[in-house]
Parts: sequence; C-alpha cells; structure tokens
Amino acid sequence: MHLLPKNVQKLIDHFTRLPGIGGKTASRLVLYLLHSPKEYTDDFAEKLGTLKESVNFCRDCYNLTEEELCSICRDEYRDKYKIIVVEDVLDILAFENVSEYKGLYHVLGGLISPIQGVGPEDLNIGILLKRAKHLGKKGEIIIATNPNLEGEATAMYIKEQLRNEEVNVTRIARGVPTGADLDYADKVTLLRALQGRGGF
Amino acid sequence: MHLLPKNVQKLIDHFTRLPGIGGKTASRLVLYLLHSPKEYTDDFAEKLGTLKESVNFCRDCYNLTEEELCSICRDEYRDKYKIIVVEDVLDILAFENVSEYKGLYHVLGGLISPIQGVGPEDLNIGILLKRAKHLGKKGEIIIATNPNLEGEATAMYIKEQLRNEEVNVTRIARGVPTGADLDYADKVTLLRALQGRGGF
Repeated sequence: MHLLPKNVQKLIDHFTRLPGIGGKTASRLVLYLLHSPKEYTDDFAEKLGTLKESVNFCRDCYNLTEEELCSICRDEYRDKYKIIVVEDVLDILAFENVSEYKGLYHVLGGLISPIQGVGPEDLNIGILLKRAKHLGKKGEIIIATNPNLEGEATAMYIKEQLRNEEVNVTRIARGVPTGADLDYADKVTLLRALQGRGGF
Repeated sequence: MHLLPKNVQKLIDHFTRLPGIGGKTASRLVLYLLHSPKEYTDDFAEKLGTLKESVNFCRDCYNLTEEELCSICRDEYRDKYKIIVVEDVLDILAFENVSEYKGLYHVLGGLISPIQGVGPEDLNIGILLKRAKHLGKKGEIIIATNPNLEGEATAMYIKEQLRNEEVNVTRIARGVPTGADLDYADKVTLLRALQGRGGF
C-alpha cells in the first residue's frame, strides 16, 4: 500500500537520487517544502526546470556562464598566461575565494578513471592542449586536480601530453595542510611533504 | 563579482534554505543536477512545482492525501477506536513500518513551543478533541509525540483537555531503547525506565 500520495513519493524519490541524501532526509525535505511559502517552491521549481537551458559552458574554459565566455575569461585584467586546471566548477570557486590568483582556469569536467569508464576523450582535455600550445614559453599550466589516485593520474596524463610544448607545466604543492597534526598525517602525505620541502 | 550565473546561484540559495543543507552541499547538488538527464530534472521541477496543488490534508486526521480522506481513514479494516496522535506525517510512516498497529492516526502538525511562538491554537488539536469525544469509553487516544520538552508539554496539554471525556488517554512507553547500553543512557531515560517498569 502506498501511504503517501503518488506525487509526494515521486518527489521524495527525486531527492533521494541526489548524492548524499537518503530516504529519511528526502522525506523531511519534502515535508519542509510542503509547509514552505508557495513563492519559494514555485521559484525553486522554475529555476530547477530552466537550469539546463539558462546555463552554458564557457567556450574556452568550460566554466558555467550565461554567455559565450565566462566572467573570468571576459575579464581583461586577468593574467592570460596562467591557467589553473581543475576537475569541476566548484574548484574554481575555491581558488577564487583565496583571491591571490588572478589568472584563468580550465575545467576538465571530471578525472580519468578506468574503473568508472572515464577516459581522456571524455574530458575537456583537447581544448586545454590547444590553449597550452597557444600560450608558448611565457605561459604556465598549473594542474590542480585533487591529490588522489584519479587526480594524480589525470595530472600525469596532461603533463605527458604537453611534453613537447614550450609552456611550463606545474602541479600544486602537496604536503601537510595548515593546522594539521603531524601525528595524524598519513604516510603518503608525509612523503610528499618531505619530497616537496624547500627553504623558508 | 558573481562567479556563477545568476540562475545557478539562485538555485543553490534555494537548496541552502532546506534544513540540514549548507552552501557547499547545495553547490554540489546543483552541479550534479546540471549533469543529470533532462527528463530527471524536468520531472523533478514539475513535481516540485505542483506539490502543493496535488496534495491535501485528510479531513479527519491531517495525513497527506490526494482525496478528501487519506488511505488510512478510508481503510474499513482498521480499528476506528484507536487513534495515535503524532507530530507530523513522517511519524505515521514510522508506526506503519512496525505493522503491528491497525488503528487510526491524528497529525498535530507541530508541537506546543512557547519559544518558537507555537501555541495549541496553531495545531490540529480542536478536531482531535472532537474525534476523541466521538469515540466514547471504548476508544483510546495514544499520544506519541516525541519524548522531549515540547513533546511532553503537548502530551500533557492534550491529556488535560480530554480530562472530562470518557475516552482512554495513554502515552507511548518511554524507557531504554532496544540495543542500548545502560551505561550511556541519560538520567531522565533511566528514571522513566524505572517508573514505567512492569512484570515480564
């Protein structure tokens, strides 16, 4: 027997499909929405329904945008000779919060993962290689994929592809994060911290 | 500067308003939706937009329904002389999962909470009192509000309101939950477990 009305159950199922949201949480969210003001749920539904149509991927860097080029690529005060390569759009937000960096970005749209069946051809790597070629020896490609198995493999792949180009290819430093306790750092992190040591 | 397109940011804000979902989680959810099949997001938006219109509250018990009476109140095989009083619709699902109980329910739609400005008049208590009066001495009102401050206060209030009625008013047992470790039980729980002790 269906205890909940069909549409309510269907909406709960839709929420449950989202990453990190289980059945109980989904039920609570739907109940919350049911008691929320109509203007809120209406606008929520409208923005959700038009999400895909209202957003493009930037022609150059695959960041989200409403126009052909994203706001970062359009910004003429940015250093066009630096490109940080990231896995997804949220990583751009993370770097922008630091506000130290004033170069450009390139969103791969994923990481190479044979287990999940994601190969280099599924990512926005082709256009990155073209951008890199265009930069020449004044340019720098900073690979900032996550420091895990897929992230390292993807970084190595891109480095290999750019072997014969003049552009400089660098990787963000891996080591112990600020505020961390050395006792609790894992072996690989400590090894990277040692390998990457420098003067201070 | 707005890094994300306006509509994307707006949708993230809508998700952030949901209970238990912070800004980072909301961003991840929206990014996930952006890469999901269009049929999914379209149906998600449609069910969300029509949620309020497609659902009524049951005339008798305030459970969710698509008709005038909910599926439980319509079920003629249920014991009409027992009513479990719960805070919200999700509590009905919890009791139905036990499948031991075959009576009816009554959804209060909240708990009395002076701090949050919720008084008895804001809850579906008036109609509960009418239903209770109607049951007479063969009936039982089982108060199953959560065993916290607001839940106990609401239970006491309802009991007091039904003082002069013939109906039996009971409260679900409070004690140590199955599988719990007595060492870790708090004082009030242990006190309730002692007070409610019985033969076995």
